[in-house]
Amino acid sequence: MGYTEFTIEGRNAVIEAYRSGKPIDKIFILDGCQDGPIMTIKREAKKHDTLIKYVAKERLDQMSETGKHQGVIAYAAAYEYAEVEDILAAAREKNEPPFIFLLDNIEDPHNLGAIIRTANLAGAHGVIIPKNRAVGLTATVARTSAGALNYTPVAKVTNIAKTIEELKKEGLWFVCADMGGTTMYDLDLKGAIGLVIGNEGDGVSRLVREKCDMVASIPMKGDIDSLNASVAAGVLAYEIVRQRLK
Amino acid sequence: MGYTEFTIEGRNAVIEAYRSGKPIDKIFILDGCQDGPIMTIKREAKKHDTLIKYVAKERLDQMSETGKHQGVIAYAAAYEYAEVEDILAAAREKNEPPFIFLLDNIEDPHNLGAIIRTANLAGAHGVIIPKNRAVGLTATVARTSAGALNYTPVAKVTNIAKTIEELKKEGLWFVCADMGGTTMYDLDLKGAIGLVIGNEGDGVSRLVREKCDMVASIPMKGDIDSLNASVAAGVLAYEIVRQRLK
Repeated sequence: MGYTEFTIEGRNAVIEAYRSGKPIDKIFILDGCQDGPIMTIKREAKKHDTLIKYVAKERLDQMSETGKHQGVIAYAAAYEYAEVEDILAAAREKNEPPFIFLLDNIEDPHNLGAIIRTANLAGAHGVIIPKNRAVGLTATVARTSAGALNYTPVAKVTNIAKTIEELKKEGLWFVCADMGGTTMYDLDLKGAIGLVIGNEGDGVSRLVREKCDMVASIPMKGDIDSLNASVAAGVLAYEIVRQRLK
Repeated sequence: MGYTEFTIEGRNAVIEAYRSGKPIDKIFILDGCQDGPIMTIKREAKKHDTLIKYVAKERLDQMSETGKHQGVIAYAAAYEYAEVEDILAAAREKNEPPFIFLLDNIEDPHNLGAIIRTANLAGAHGVIIPKNRAVGLTATVARTSAGALNYTPVAKVTNIAKTIEELKKEGLWFVCADMGGTTMYDLDLKGAIGLVIGNEGDGVSRLVREKCDMVASIPMKGDIDSLNASVAAGVLAYEIVRQRLK
């Protein structure tokens, strides 16, 4: 796998990048720009679930490395996303029941990087992230993952809830972290499992939560609401590790 | 408790702040400045273990809110640090065996904030950080702690190893996280306990490690070296919670 990030500037270059299938994470478009090529780029961006940000000319000028952005700058990841099937294959290869992290809209790249790092060390076979809204594999994520991005496959899917449905057919059970669930120590987390981690502020979305077989809660003795998302992911992942080791 | 951060600009203001005992985290001094008042400030800074940074005039001008920094800007925390005794008192008040986090030079404010957040939710009675080198209670720490800084007392000590010695007399056992230790599930972590978390890059320092009664290792199944420091702290803290709940 491996990872680098680069920018693509200018209308033709960006359209060409889409046509050749380069994975583009994010695109900055000059606010108010409505001409033909820009409309084409917007259509491609929507088709590929790229995050679009509309910005002022000064911002684009500042970001531009070539000075010739023509109103559009794209951020592409040279990371090659895996397929969900690759993750299942990795589990089969190791002769282990699948253990997969599913991230329901993690927004902070530091959290995403730390979670991929945890997934690697907890022995998970891969991480699944959604195409929309959530943060993709940016340079910060790569750095925060401390190298884990080179080993742990990350797949990007359109709909986490639908992916859960499909993975259930492969025999996986799904557990999400949420308040009001069963204390994690009292759940059986030993088999083929998908661990669902919700958004930093909003937690797991309703639709995804409904697809989960179990809702796990981490005991909270304190005064505030919730753990940091990457810490919660670590605590739950290691409860799974503990149960699997027994 | 509660927390706010503010800057103090100008030579007399900074000297006055030291004399009145305000907790100053960090001080920026114009590079090359050697006159009397600046030397006094440097002496005070060393006496109070303030981090000193030497910077160019442009940087100071940029940071200055008043435009009259006279070559020195100090960052002070309006957070009132607790004493170690306050933390022990909090445990006694709740009628619980003390559970204290000791951070051996955490440098990243996001990690420090996330760890204080974890300490609060895991039911720890307080957090002890070293005066030197490590990050103090900056605005980023306060924000990342998600409010925990208002509930969980944080004490600052000169020497973590010496503090461990003193706390042993109070009946605490100390466990640090390090590779080559005993798998955490096989340790008895139920009594009065101090959980020692090491530096992000270097881990626990030799002197502190030698003072610890137990070295715990988190099972690592992956390809990379170590978990993020705040994730490791969370995983260990919740193993303590699990054992205490049994």
